Amino acid sequence: MHTEPLYRQLASHYLHAIQAGTLRPGERMPSVRVLMQRHDVSLSTALQVCRHLESRGVLEARPRSGYFVRPQARAGLAPASEPVAALPDPARYVGIHQRVSDIVARGQAATVHTNLSGASGAPGLYPTEPLKNAAIRALRQHPDLFGQGVPTLGVPEFRAVIAKRALAARMNLSADEVLITQGCIEALNLALRAVAQPGDVIAVESPGFYGLLQVLESLGMRALEIPTSPQTGISLEALELAAQTYDRIAGVVVVPNLQNPLGAVMPEAHKERLVRWCAAQGIALIEDDTYSGTHNDEAPLSALKSWDRDGGVIHCASLHKTLAPGMRLGWISAGRWHARVEMLKFTQSRPNEALSQLAVADFMASGAYDRHLRRLRVMLRDQREQLAEAIATCFPAGTRLSVPNGGLGLWIEMPQGCSSATVFDAALREGIRIAPGLMFSNSNRFDGFIRLSCGFPYTRALDQALRRLADVVRRAG
Amino acid sequence: MHTEPLYRQLASHYLHAIQAGTLRPGERMPSVRVLMQRHDVSLSTALQVCRHLESRGVLEARPRSGYFVRPQARAGLAPASEPVAALPDPARYVGIHQRVSDIVARGQAATVHTNLSGASGAPGLYPTEPLKNAAIRALRQHPDLFGQGVPTLGVPEFRAVIAKRALAARMNLSADEVLITQGCIEALNLALRAVAQPGDVIAVESPGFYGLLQVLESLGMRALEIPTSPQTGISLEALELAAQTYDRIAGVVVVPNLQNPLGAVMPEAHKERLVRWCAAQGIALIEDDTYSGTHNDEAPLSALKSWDRDGGVIHCASLHKTLAPGMRLGWISAGRWHARVEMLKFTQSRPNEALSQLAVADFMASGAYDRHLRRLRVMLRDQREQLAEAIATCFPAGTRLSVPNGGLGLWIEMPQGCSSATVFDAALREGIRIAPGLMFSNSNRFDGFIRLSCGFPYTRALDQALRRLADVVRRAG
Ligand SMILES: Cc1ncc(COP(=O)(O)O)c(C=O)c1O
Ligand SMILES: Cc1ncc(COP(=O)(O)O)c(C=O)c1O
Repeated sequence: MHTEPLYRQLASHYLHAIQAGTLRPGERMPSVRVLMQRHDVSLSTALQVCRHLESRGVLEARPRSGYFVRPQARAGLAPASEPVAALPDPARYVGIHQRVSDIVARGQAATVHTNLSGASGAPGLYPTEPLKNAAIRALRQHPDLFGQGVPTLGVPEFRAVIAKRALAARMNLSADEVLITQGCIEALNLALRAVAQPGDVIAVESPGFYGLLQVLESLGMRALEIPTSPQTGISLEALELAAQTYDRIAGVVVVPNLQNPLGAVMPEAHKERLVRWCAAQGIALIEDDTYSGTHNDEAPLSALKSWDRDGGVIHCASLHKTLAPGMRLGWISAGRWHARVEMLKFTQSRPNEALSQLAVADFMASGAYDRHLRRLRVMLRDQREQLAEAIATCFPAGTRLSVPNGGLGLWIEMPQGCSSATVFDAALREGIRIAPGLMFSNSNRFDGFIRLSCGFPYTRALDQALRRLADVVRRAG
Repeated sequence: MHTEPLYRQLASHYLHAIQAGTLRPGERMPSVRVLMQRHDVSLSTALQVCRHLESRGVLEARPRSGYFVRPQARAGLAPASEPVAALPDPARYVGIHQRVSDIVARGQAATVHTNLSGASGAPGLYPTEPLKNAAIRALRQHPDLFGQGVPTLGVPEFRAVIAKRALAARMNLSADEVLITQGCIEALNLALRAVAQPGDVIAVESPGFYGLLQVLESLGMRALEIPTSPQTGISLEALELAAQTYDRIAGVVVVPNLQNPLGAVMPEAHKERLVRWCAAQGIALIEDDTYSGTHNDEAPLSALKSWDRDGGVIHCASLHKTLAPGMRLGWISAGRWHARVEMLKFTQSRPNEALSQLAVADFMASGAYDRHLRRLRVMLRDQREQLAEAIATCFPAGTRLSVPNGGLGLWIEMPQGCSSATVFDAALREGIRIAPGLMFSNSNRFDGFIRLSCGFPYTRALDQALRRLADVVRRAG
């Protein structure tokens, strides 16, 4: 389903060509005339294509010579390295809690002027004013709201709008199949509790979201870390090999779209193959779709759940990154485990409060939601690319980085010999907080990496902080 | 600490005498003159005592003869039976989930005009208007609220007001020792996860809150049901005996004040003994203090935690019954497990949203909160006593009932031979929903009981429904 305007489709086409190196920095972009002929489009569409790519910093106009692919500092950076296609670690169950908590506690205790450790954005990215107004409206429309029990399973209007939106990611859900949760994190807890027992092995991406490792540890489950590529996500070969080699795998958890911390998007063929393979093996597949809404392209990314035929895929998602970091709205559609998940949710925390659901249902049903998402995408992309440019400009030689097409962070491979633990501490002393690679695995494998948030406008203050951080990395090398 | 006015203290004194049968229905209350001499109080205080008891329906004025203890229909009811002081059941782990879910599902599927199955009150009991206004104020004061991350561990003002309020129940907590949760139910989950593992044995009250049995089952822990008295709460003898007889007990969960479903309040001496005994045995003691605020008397009930010397008591509570059924605000103070509980909360659901915390902190810091609690107590007491009167009037002979001094329900022992399962189904067919005794234990021991909510005003419609329910019980006998 392509609902994008024609000029956007063409712009994407050339953008991919540039990203793939088919058109190189400094090369001339096909002229407007060529574009008109080649794609049978009007002058105005051809011009829009070039202007759009110019506005995104991909092309530059040279007076009287036309458009050229802009040389980018980051073009000088090597992409982050691919994982070694070796066997994953045997399932481990170590004190990730302790490690993460220590890092978080030290981060919180320090006085920090620049916090790049988080994975959510600045308030300015979010429609706080209309959400506030929607909440006030909901309070006025439901004056007895706080005196009434909370609606079981979630507010019906909110569940309905979630189900409707899921269509765009090619899922076919009814509102009845959507259970509202306290963010994606509660959804993940419920999914894991529904499909596995303490002691069971769960395959996860490596590097992967540290919060998931904490959940697994707290539930007494064992994380089996599967190598994951910055380009294509979890390695299906490694996963299949692991399934032959180790204990029974009870479940797989993946972030198929804009993985944290890598930003990888799984190719469609990988998504389909993963769903089929899990179904064949009888392994529960849990998808965490927290970041889809931050993708550069307007065309929605597909969910794993869209390939689900027998209820074996559990879809978990959240509005925490894309609409409102100040709310705790997530949801789960748990396929054949859905009834069990409903029960566990009731037992674990009872249904969510109604107010923010009412406010968001109101907002999401209006055109304002799509306008917000468009603005969010553009702002995040700009911030992400500015940050990447700055890193390319000032980080020491040997730094590697793949700029993803969405998400709230950049995953940076530091020059050989740098330890993220050292950089974390040294940066804190400079008033800068980052997320050390160590947090994203039970192993020490990612100590050479750091994750930086691109959730903030690229101000002069941020630029200065980044230069200071570059010095810290240089000294750590 | 008695901060009650003198006339209230004296009124309580005589109320207890009446409840204990020292002054019997129809007997003359000591005259105002006698009260003045006996207690060395003024005429106006003595009059206040009598008028207060009259307003509570305990005394009646007879023209020119003074005050008399009012004959009460329910005086004809025997108190609910005491538990047999036998050994508790061996720890069980059966499908309470399934049983409770079936009952809940059937209740929800039926068309019901009178729902007496719940344990919360009608919206009219709660200050919905000022809470709504406080929420709107909070939104205006924090226009970026939904765009900012949620405050870790809870909103500071809210944690501070909870800590301050805890003083009245003789607990000495700092705001740092209060973690905000999704209601008491999340607090209980966290407490149990912190102190015990799957497979561990947890001692609980029997009959007891069915939600706790669900939590235990979902966590794979085994409930050891300890006989519990409608007057004095959990049987300490039975608990001590159980500890000698069965597996190691990892924790004890009790509702010391206004237990659900019995309404029992543990005597102070029992509270102290239980805390000391658990400390000596190294058994974690989890207290669920959900209902204290509904006590008839203004003087606050003491918390088990007020006897805690070594951090062995975990205090869990909630505003769901006493302030706002439409919010999900609870908290936990977990003594020596507090750091672990903080981590588990983060891992399970992240911190609560800020808005309702801000609204409630605002409301609770004002005098309006105490005014609300006073009104709630009086309204609930009236509703409870009217319901009890009606049951005494129209339920079949052999019905037994102890009217508790607070709480949101009545626990009714039906005449021999009645089954709560039968009564539940038959009542549903009449459009009336009740909570069958079967829900409150993993055994069938309480099938002879039902719990009715006293959260609703005693209207004519309710009176009619109750008469129809009485007929249902009669037919089931
Ligand atoms: C991949 C992933 N899943 C889930 C979460 C948590 O989501 P929520 O805030 O909705 O609970 C995060 C937050 O960082 C995340 O990165
Ligand atoms: C004894 C007891 N504890 C806890 C709860 C649940 O409390 P909350 O709604 O605050 O999660 C209830 C509700 O019925 C209850 O009766």
